[in-house]
Amino acid sequence: MATIVQKFGGTSVGTIERIKRVAERAVKTHRAGHKVVVVVSAMSGETNRLLGLAGQLTDAPHHREIDVLVSSGEQVSIGLVALACCQMGAEARSYLGHQVRITTDDAHGMARIRDIDADSVVKALDRGEIVVVAGFQGVNADGGITTLGRGGSDLSAVAMAAAVKADVCEIYTDVDGIYTTDPRVVKEAQKIERITFQEMLELASLGAKVLQTRSVEFAMKYKVPIHVRSSFDDSEGSWVVPEEEGMEGAVVTGVAFDRNTAKLTVLDVPDKPGTVAALLGPLGEAGINVDVIIQNTASDGRTDVTFTVSQTEMERAVALADGVAKQLGANGVTADAHVAKVSVVGAGMRSEAGVAVKMFTHLGTAGVNIQLISTSEIKISCIVDENFTELAVRVLHDAFRLHEPTGAAAE
Amino acid sequence: MATIVQKFGGTSVGTIERIKRVAERAVKTHRAGHKVVVVVSAMSGETNRLLGLAGQLTDAPHHREIDVLVSSGEQVSIGLVALACCQMGAEARSYLGHQVRITTDDAHGMARIRDIDADSVVKALDRGEIVVVAGFQGVNADGGITTLGRGGSDLSAVAMAAAVKADVCEIYTDVDGIYTTDPRVVKEAQKIERITFQEMLELASLGAKVLQTRSVEFAMKYKVPIHVRSSFDDSEGSWVVPEEEGMEGAVVTGVAFDRNTAKLTVLDVPDKPGTVAALLGPLGEAGINVDVIIQNTASDGRTDVTFTVSQTEMERAVALADGVAKQLGANGVTADAHVAKVSVVGAGMRSEAGVAVKMFTHLGTAGVNIQLISTSEIKISCIVDENFTELAVRVLHDAFRLHEPTGAAAE
Repeated sequence: MATIVQKFGGTSVGTIERIKRVAERAVKTHRAGHKVVVVVSAMSGETNRLLGLAGQLTDAPHHREIDVLVSSGEQVSIGLVALACCQMGAEARSYLGHQVRITTDDAHGMARIRDIDADSVVKALDRGEIVVVAGFQGVNADGGITTLGRGGSDLSAVAMAAAVKADVCEIYTDVDGIYTTDPRVVKEAQKIERITFQEMLELASLGAKVLQTRSVEFAMKYKVPIHVRSSFDDSEGSWVVPEEEGMEGAVVTGVAFDRNTAKLTVLDVPDKPGTVAALLGPLGEAGINVDVIIQNTASDGRTDVTFTVSQTEMERAVALADGVAKQLGANGVTADAHVAKVSVVGAGMRSEAGVAVKMFTHLGTAGVNIQLISTSEIKISCIVDENFTELAVRVLHDAFRLHEPTGAAAE
Repeated sequence: MATIVQKFGGTSVGTIERIKRVAERAVKTHRAGHKVVVVVSAMSGETNRLLGLAGQLTDAPHHREIDVLVSSGEQVSIGLVALACCQMGAEARSYLGHQVRITTDDAHGMARIRDIDADSVVKALDRGEIVVVAGFQGVNADGGITTLGRGGSDLSAVAMAAAVKADVCEIYTDVDGIYTTDPRVVKEAQKIERITFQEMLELASLGAKVLQTRSVEFAMKYKVPIHVRSSFDDSEGSWVVPEEEGMEGAVVTGVAFDRNTAKLTVLDVPDKPGTVAALLGPLGEAGINVDVIIQNTASDGRTDVTFTVSQTEMERAVALADGVAKQLGANGVTADAHVAKVSVVGAGMRSEAGVAVKMFTHLGTAGVNIQLISTSEIKISCIVDENFTELAVRVLHDAFRLHEPTGAAAE
């Protein structure tokens, strides 16, 4: 007998028919002898409908009341899923964030989970009940409803799994797992059987959209195995697991890319200690995330500083950088929205030399010019002209033999 | 400075424009220096939409989860009303039933309020905040969401008013007050300026639909003055007040009627002690409310027992009565759905003789045959042929001079 958390997103509970299928899966798992916690999002479209109503009333961010409003969406879902389970003869009971109880900080709209007191849930599971939990929501110290931000239901599910010491947190989606790259770009992309948390984190934050980054961080911290699988069938999906349980040998696990990238260069910055901090400080304060940062070798006491931000934040970043550039006596700011980030990720590259060289060689042979390079222990990212994104992804997917079934990829 | 509870029903918060008007009224009252608690229902149609979704999943009454589902409707309303108030520059904060906290028993779908711990609301009012409370909902001892039954938001408002010791509970509706009778039947019907709780209770339970009966009982118990008024303008409505504050002299305050009435007669019942109890016991156990009961004078040790029930429950009542009639050795059951109950209500009739005689005389003169009569301290009800309903109401409204402005009605 295992304890299993099953998370279903908005599409999976988007209609009454789909809610029935969610309940069928939960009841079937329960009848197979397992303890089952179901975590659900709002029915697809509902959160946007509610935000639309709020938008007709105010353009100011009254996050506290917005949270009260939008969290009603998950309340509807848990009521319906619990009803559907009851109709199938199971004992099911719904739990709101404050009932579980999922305690968060006060950051309405993007709250962080502080603690889960799952005592009542554990007791319900022991009584043989299916527990249906509202994703996306928690409660602050004052008893006010908070929400965890977009994609927060993944986080709710992983956190519930940690709290009830579940054997697995199953994330049901409209794809059947995590792929070596986007199958729309490389049709030979393979489903990954097993991937480590660290690799998944790099893939998630690098633009693969299957799992919310914070939920992977949480799963890694509490060692909760995640099984990403299809809500349409019973096939095995992809397992995200701690490294000690993971496979060895896969030097490169996947190729990620992110078109939402823009490159800024501040020209002729005086080469003095503290200059880069002075330049990037205001961007951080404005909530703009700076990704790849490169400083050229100085000549004549001057240097160029280049960095990337989200394309959507480019204009704000340029305005801020312009101001600082003037103060520092730099020679202006140039910006390029037409770049993309292409990355290879793999836990095996820690112990494998030559991955970077192989990556650069293959890109060069294909005529893809590398503008910036950034590396971590288990990933290498290159900034390239946006037009070369698909080409670069295909070349790398091929070079690292990711089209071959998992297990055969190591070179 | 007064403390004012303002209750708005589903129609009054049915659109974004109407929600703005609700917020305008609350903010205006607040700016006039008062403490304001707003109690709202779900947007009109929302509760039925949610029940419709549940109906597609199950036909069994899983009341606990139904309550979780439908209570989300009020959650949306309070979020939107609070947002609208904030947008107008006021400090506003929403409260769900469990946040107030409104504690109820476990009777999901028709819970009774046990206690309100309005400490946090009182503090919020002292801080100068507009408090927006979800009507219709409470929380049981286990922290589960409960609902108070249809019309429960009136009860929530009155209970909140009692808990915060409000000076008045304003009930906003689409009519501008309580009338001497239904203006659709008697176009000269007058708005009643002041009416006692006892009179209102008789009118409410006799078929006038302005205020939910339980909310009037609650207001009477805690001496909360109710002001029923229009949500469309600022005119004075009708005040429902304790008797000591009420007017004197109005012998008859209003004429009520209820077409949802059916008459059953059990024929030739043996005239023995306990017979009526044996006859009506099973109906009570089945939740069927028996209203007027008449037992004829016995002859030859046999009698007829006649009583009324709701028309909608007539068939069930006949089936049950038939069974008992056979056991008792009675001579069968006859039923008549084509009757109506017409009543005159007035606190002044306690000290005024001749009201009943006047009522019967005028009905007789108009050719209305009285089938059954039932009286209480402050009301007289007659069961008549349904076809004579309007005629009877008009004759009585005229006889007791209710078309004259309030205060001139006493004869």
